[in-house]
Order: sequence, then structure tokens, then C-alpha cells
Amino acid sequence: MIKQLMDKIEKTKAPVCIGLDPMLSYVPEHILAKSFEAFGETLEGAAEAVWQFNREIVDCTYDLIPAVKPQIAMYEQFGIEGLKAYQKTVDYCHEKGLVVIGDAKRGDIGSTSAAYAAGHLGKVVVGGKSYAGFGTDFLTVNPYLGTDGVKPFVDVCKAEDKGIFVLVKTSNPSSGEFQDKLIDGKPLYELVADKVVEWGESTMEGDYSNVGAVVGATYPEMSRILRKRMPHIYFLVPGYGAQGGTAEDLKCCFNPDGFGAIVNSSRGIIAAYKKEAYAKFGPEHFGEASRQAVMDMAADINRVL
Amino acid sequence: MIKQLMDKIEKTKAPVCIGLDPMLSYVPEHILAKSFEAFGETLEGAAEAVWQFNREIVDCTYDLIPAVKPQIAMYEQFGIEGLKAYQKTVDYCHEKGLVVIGDAKRGDIGSTSAAYAAGHLGKVVVGGKSYAGFGTDFLTVNPYLGTDGVKPFVDVCKAEDKGIFVLVKTSNPSSGEFQDKLIDGKPLYELVADKVVEWGESTMEGDYSNVGAVVGATYPEMSRILRKRMPHIYFLVPGYGAQGGTAEDLKCCFNPDGFGAIVNSSRGIIAAYKKEAYAKFGPEHFGEASRQAVMDMAADINRVL
Repeated sequence: MIKQLMDKIEKTKAPVCIGLDPMLSYVPEHILAKSFEAFGETLEGAAEAVWQFNREIVDCTYDLIPAVKPQIAMYEQFGIEGLKAYQKTVDYCHEKGLVVIGDAKRGDIGSTSAAYAAGHLGKVVVGGKSYAGFGTDFLTVNPYLGTDGVKPFVDVCKAEDKGIFVLVKTSNPSSGEFQDKLIDGKPLYELVADKVVEWGESTMEGDYSNVGAVVGATYPEMSRILRKRMPHIYFLVPGYGAQGGTAEDLKCCFNPDGFGAIVNSSRGIIAAYKKEAYAKFGPEHFGEASRQAVMDMAADINRVL
Repeated sequence: MIKQLMDKIEKTKAPVCIGLDPMLSYVPEHILAKSFEAFGETLEGAAEAVWQFNREIVDCTYDLIPAVKPQIAMYEQFGIEGLKAYQKTVDYCHEKGLVVIGDAKRGDIGSTSAAYAAGHLGKVVVGGKSYAGFGTDFLTVNPYLGTDGVKPFVDVCKAEDKGIFVLVKTSNPSSGEFQDKLIDGKPLYELVADKVVEWGESTMEGDYSNVGAVVGATYPEMSRILRKRMPHIYFLVPGYGAQGGTAEDLKCCFNPDGFGAIVNSSRGIIAAYKKEAYAKFGPEHFGEASRQAVMDMAADINRVL
């Protein structure tokens, strides 16, 4: 799967991923009104609004980008109806040829992680049949429970040609509270990084592994160290734009081969029409604003590579 | 909410929680056959089997126990249909007066954790209305992202009288890989424990906080230390029974007041009919086997308290 992602990055010349994390406050009034008219101010109405919003953004951007990263929490907050919108979004992105990274940060004891892995990346057996659950291509995974919480995901990656991104150094302000703590002189995130390398060794495709790492754009000095420590691990890089990371901050996430990282932007792209720079598009043409924001982001990143 | 849980523990004299983690392999043949007859060997059929299985276990045990802990992964693996069964299970357990601990181990950056907190514990706003998503009473939370990943859950606990259990020391074999690593001479799990105490201070109900901790039964020497370090924090204790923890191992999770811990058992209760000790009930009476297993577990724990 990492090869497939890299091929798409090469083709689009955009190591960019749109975070489909639709807060209702991002959805333009005309879409909200139409959805609420059809389904009322209900969970179903919210889910419809989110889905219509996503669809227009995907329609306006799919030819420019290799991948999307829907954050499942933004759907899960609306319960079952929200998760139906998640599923529709995943399926629609696949129809449009996009790689889909499910941002779910799952992770548990072995048997439980196996269930998550089956449900999001693999297949689940029912009697004599088997079914894909959500069917995403990559999933983000939390490492706190150690190897036996991650291994079931790696096993599914191998069996089904899928991938994961394991949280190593996250982009949020308090990420250092535990992740930066020194253990024998080395921060915890480096220890996790070393495990990611180990987990990834069994599922290489060419120069890179199907086991990747989440490395935030907001801590460039740490990204630089991690890039050297994990030469064959792809980075999923959140934190660009709204969270404060700049293109210069990102440069060190890439390898000399020009690969090695895919940069996510959520709010900066999907709510672009709310920013002054794209206000001219207006809420009616929010998808076009997102398209322009993707082009600007790709240019900004390519400028430093 | 912790007060409500403690009242129920006192009333039932059972600091016991049933893990409603239904693998299809636990579901007796006659329930599978009936579900597949109605819905085919489909995700819907699997979800129906899981739901019917849960219902019978709850019917046979609800008067003996204070709480249940459905592991959402076991439902999520069947996609939307599975999550509908999760929702039905949560609602049914509430009808039966049980406290419901959603075992979801969620945790992310602040805005994302806020969405999870709204969806599982709180309410989500849609236009001028607000809705509960899954509506569980407690949720398990992963601390890897630090304070700003946990705080949104704490805020909802305060606003809605709900609770969380934060992963401190998990019960699985590789939990020590990161959790036991020494930081300035103290293991990471103690550092997390100190943060749990801090997070919990703002949401006390009597002697205990609505912010609890997950502390596995399989590492008693560590539980002992953690019990002293977090005197006002309730422990959710997995690992009893099938995972190897004994009643003696659990004793140190309790405080001298007889409170302070609720012990979970999943497989040992819900698949009791498959064990030699309860084989006499047979698959047709699996619920009665679970009932006997709950009584035996409560007696076993009360023996050491």
C-alpha cells in the first residue's frame, strides 16, 4: 500500500493529504439548510450535511491529491448516523481513486487490536463468508500498549496490503508531557520510533515500510532526528497550517529521494473559504476555495523540497 | 457518576463488571443459526447474534452486578451494523439499571478528543438541538497525547456527571515496553498516574474522582504502588481470570474502605459455558452459566477483601 501511496504522490507532485474532519461550524449555511430541511436538526441531518460537504471538497480536489485522511471522531460524535457518513466518505474517496487514511488512533490489547484491524483494514469472518468493515487503506495506531497492541495491525497490513501510521511524536501542545520524557537519555518518542522500525521490517515495499509514523510538523528539531532514525519509515505529518507548522518546518520530514512524508492539512483546506485569502470564493464556492488552498499548499511544500 | 457506580457496588456487594466483548466464537450455535436464518451470514446477521447473546447475558446477570464494559472494537469490527448492536447493548443495559463503561480507549489532540467526548459521554449540538451520541456513563481514555488530549473528556465529565478511566498500567504482556520505562528513576506509568491525580482533582465526588485509572490485575506489585500513589482514584481492573490475574493479585487494588476498584472479566463470564466448570449448563443455558460465573467471581473477590 505504501508503494501505491508513493505512486500517487509522484503522479500528483503533491505530498499532501486533506484531513476530512468536518466540524459542523465549517459547513456552509446553504448545505446545512438543505440537510436540515430534508432530515431536520437531527443526527441524520448533521450526517447528511457532513457528507455533502465532504463530497463537494473531494469533487473539487481529487485530481490534485494522492490521499485523504478522515478523522473518525468527527463522525463518531454523531453516533451511528455520523459513522454512516464516514463510511460513505471512505467509499466515495475510493471511487475517486484516492488512498484513504483512517485517522482513528486505535490500539488495545492483542485480541482487541485484532478486531480493530479487521474492522478498519482487513476482513471479518461471518460464518462461511468474510466482509470488509470500513475498508480504509491506512489506519493511525496508538502505541501505548506496546508490541502486542500493534502487531495485529501489522499482520493485517501484510495479509491485505494495507498500512498503518503509528503515533510517535504528535503535533499538539502537550505532546511532550510523556512523549519527550527521557529514558536512559533518549526521549520516549525515539524509543517508540525504534519499535516502529522493528515492527516495519516485516512489511517493506521497496525502500519504505507499510508501517509508518505520525510525526507532527510543529516540532521540526525532533522531526529531523526522527527522519534519520527511521530512514525507511514514511511520515504522516499533521500540524501544517492551522496548527502552526510551516513548509520550512516540514522539510526535514522528507528524505533526499524527495519521498518519506505526506503532509496533512484539515481546517486550512476544508474551511479555506472562511480565510481571508480565499474569501473571494464565498461560501457557495467553498469547494473551489479548497482547491485553490490545496494548490497553494502543494506549491508551498514543493518550494522547500 | 463515580458515586452512582459506588452505590451500585455497595448494593450488589460485587465490585465486578462484565466485559461484553462478544467474539462470534463465543456465541452458541443456536443463536448464530437463528440470526443467520433471519439475516444471512452477513454483517447484519453477525450484529444480531452479538446483540441476542448480550441480551441474554444481561438478563441473567443484571441484578448481581453494578456495571458492564462493552469493548467497542468487538462491535466496530462489523462496521455500522456492529455499532448498531453496540448502541442497542448500551441502551438495554441502561434500561436494566446498569452503569455502562464504554471501553474505547480514545484519545487525540484537543479538538478531536472533544468530539469523542461529546459522542460517547456528552452531547453534540446540531443546529438548535443537542443529542447524546452513544450515551455511555464512563469511557476509557488513552493518555499518550498528554493533558490537552485528556482535558476535553474531563470537561464533559464535569458538565454531564460522567466519568473516564485513563490507561495507566495495562494488563497485556507487552504493556511494560513503554509503560515501565524509567524516567528520572520512576516508571512512565507512575508519571501518568500523577497526571491522572491532577486531572481528577477538579471532578471529585466524595472520596473519589470521576477520573479513574485502568490498572491491570496482572501486575500486582505495580498495582500496590499505584494504589498508594492515587488514593482517590478508582481503578478499573482488567486481566482477572482468562488473562491470568487472581483474587489475591487484586486485593492491593482496593482501599481500606473496601472501595477503590471494579474488576472486569470478559471471556471468563460471557463464555463461561465453554469452561469445564460450567459445562453442565450447556450452550442452551449459557446465560445461566454466566450468572453462576459472576456469583463465583464476586465470592472469590469478596473472599480476599
